[in-house]
Amino acid sequence: MKTLQLTFLMFIQLCLVASYAQSDKTIVEDFKPSSLNQPGQEYPQVNSQGYARFRIYAPEAKSVKVTLGGREGTILTKSDDGFWTGTTSEPLDEGFHYYHLIVDGGVFNDPGTLNFYGSIRWESGIEVPAKDQDFYALKDVPHGRVVQVLFPSKSTNSIRRAFVYLPPDYEKDINKRYPVLYLQHGWGEDETAWTNQGRAHLIMDNLIAEGKAKPFIIVMTYGMTNEIKFGELRKFDIKPFQTVLVDELIPYIDNNFRTIPDQKNRAMAGLSMGSMETKMITLANTDKFSYIGLFSGASLSMDDVNKIPGFKDKVKLVFVSYGSKEIDWMVQRGREFTGGDPRENVEALKKAGINSVLYISPNTAHEFLSWRRSLREFAPMLFKD
Amino acid sequence: MKTLQLTFLMFIQLCLVASYAQSDKTIVEDFKPSSLNQPGQEYPQVNSQGYARFRIYAPEAKSVKVTLGGREGTILTKSDDGFWTGTTSEPLDEGFHYYHLIVDGGVFNDPGTLNFYGSIRWESGIEVPAKDQDFYALKDVPHGRVVQVLFPSKSTNSIRRAFVYLPPDYEKDINKRYPVLYLQHGWGEDETAWTNQGRAHLIMDNLIAEGKAKPFIIVMTYGMTNEIKFGELRKFDIKPFQTVLVDELIPYIDNNFRTIPDQKNRAMAGLSMGSMETKMITLANTDKFSYIGLFSGASLSMDDVNKIPGFKDKVKLVFVSYGSKEIDWMVQRGREFTGGDPRENVEALKKAGINSVLYISPNTAHEFLSWRRSLREFAPMLFKD
Repeated sequence: MKTLQLTFLMFIQLCLVASYAQSDKTIVEDFKPSSLNQPGQEYPQVNSQGYARFRIYAPEAKSVKVTLGGREGTILTKSDDGFWTGTTSEPLDEGFHYYHLIVDGGVFNDPGTLNFYGSIRWESGIEVPAKDQDFYALKDVPHGRVVQVLFPSKSTNSIRRAFVYLPPDYEKDINKRYPVLYLQHGWGEDETAWTNQGRAHLIMDNLIAEGKAKPFIIVMTYGMTNEIKFGELRKFDIKPFQTVLVDELIPYIDNNFRTIPDQKNRAMAGLSMGSMETKMITLANTDKFSYIGLFSGASLSMDDVNKIPGFKDKVKLVFVSYGSKEIDWMVQRGREFTGGDPRENVEALKKAGINSVLYISPNTAHEFLSWRRSLREFAPMLFKD
Repeated sequence: MKTLQLTFLMFIQLCLVASYAQSDKTIVEDFKPSSLNQPGQEYPQVNSQGYARFRIYAPEAKSVKVTLGGREGTILTKSDDGFWTGTTSEPLDEGFHYYHLIVDGGVFNDPGTLNFYGSIRWESGIEVPAKDQDFYALKDVPHGRVVQVLFPSKSTNSIRRAFVYLPPDYEKDINKRYPVLYLQHGWGEDETAWTNQGRAHLIMDNLIAEGKAKPFIIVMTYGMTNEIKFGELRKFDIKPFQTVLVDELIPYIDNNFRTIPDQKNRAMAGLSMGSMETKMITLANTDKFSYIGLFSGASLSMDDVNKIPGFKDKVKLVFVSYGSKEIDWMVQRGREFTGGDPRENVEALKKAGINSVLYISPNTAHEFLSWRRSLREFAPMLFKD
């Protein structure tokens, strides 16, 4: 448990440190509004190098700071017109970033942006265009649907929410049934993360349109059933969420959507804490899941595998991914990965005849572009055996 | 057009003035967190009388104000611990209210609450419990689904979003087809309004469970196609939105969901500006819609009706509703309603043998509880002829 806690702290440090590409470049003045701004809002803006610029109206304030752009964030300066402006001192990594403002010591969101649930609050968000962003763009292809379902949960004495992605054509052939991927968010996030931040539905629409992925259903629910606070990881217990997922949600989905309800047609994946939940739940339920996706968190060692008789026959894929900066950070500091070096673990599984894949997202850290890319790599590997 | 503008300005005044019940009562100290707070947030709070209390952390700020609680809003006072607190000087009406903070002259949301799109920005929101709130509660009844769809729109050269409510059991009997209600939001809102603020899906789940409403599909899309700014109402043109709705969205829905795609099984309703859009679109398309719902906005006069041959045979219901405080405000000031007094209009339609209903929501103004109740009254009247 102590090593689990260390790993999480490392991840948070990675979030703070590794998200900023170092640069001595001159700032190119081609700033454009972030695609995640509220309708009609010009700021914040991002330029072609990944610098972000902010503009906040608070004419009587004493200080306004943005929690992006280096260890101290970006301190804004006030003009006579009452607007506070500033630009990050370094470019941000490509992709999505959470942030908020500190206005006179209080935490507030940037009124220019939409809101995204992470770090257990609805945060502001900014998007830095990526060279490969086409794979998660809203394109003129057939679109699937994202369905909000409310399902009963006896174990938590509540009605819980899940979002279900149905592939394009789900409504067309009413006799066709589909495999299912259960996809989990990270600590501090919720069931909106994989669509709002992750764009999973658009990634799938595009993969299916290109014939790269077999159409399947994705189920995204809230995984922080055991609502631990950061720093209290020794209290983490997988049982409450495992009960919700395996005993309540899977039967609900199988009863209410046209699924192929067997082990061969069920996958689970997750990011960060979601990958740890995925590892724990799939290893305890190899009769229910045949594909395992672990994004920026856990990996499986031969010790894990050897505890499960017939693992090689039951499990068709162990997919492990990280942002390149996550690996670099650990290596540069000589740190040990919890549960073993994932690169060595994947190789060991391969040698033992298990289909294991390691994907490293270039130039990203513990952040959503790593996970969008992970889904892009993982999805085409599913349900084709 | 000038009278349309006056009516809108009146509505805004109603929003500002009529939302506050007058009271000399002592404030009862039974405050509880608003049900619309972010997870784990204790403030804002509401008491049994409808007073609202706020608590904001901004230790270096000079002033913090809340835009609720009287014409000047509620000015908060700072304590030594850096928290600003205050209570509204009057109770708020029952139901949902938009608001935001003014922190040192800048507009920011209350970090304690979820966000709701209205007044062309994502606002904070607070919920005052209502005596009749059971009808929109999340109850242990069979639940429908809210589906996000992305549909192509040639006329606006874009991919547009709609939310589609599918009643419980939609997935059960795959041969059953359903009538459709097209339900529009008001000015400054968007396609999320009727679910997030309006709870239309929960209202329908409950009505269906009680056997009061026939199950039908609800389609909610963005109606501000002609994106007028407030005060520019003379630029309002129904054609862009009418084209999207009638030529693009209706065919998309009929092609992708199991609808009964004819005039007898199609209704349209809307609130405020949405009611004006509903009036304009249904009157121009009585071959497509047979039920008309006008919440807090338009009504139909005999002049309107007489322009349409065979109106009485084509249209099964003209439902008109207001909050009682909206009517009171107009009457007390001797103002004229645009298009005629709705109470007189409804009576005139009845006399002419048209099924017309007037519903007045008790003790509410131009606000969402009026519209939740309007839907509760309107839905059971649909598709039973």
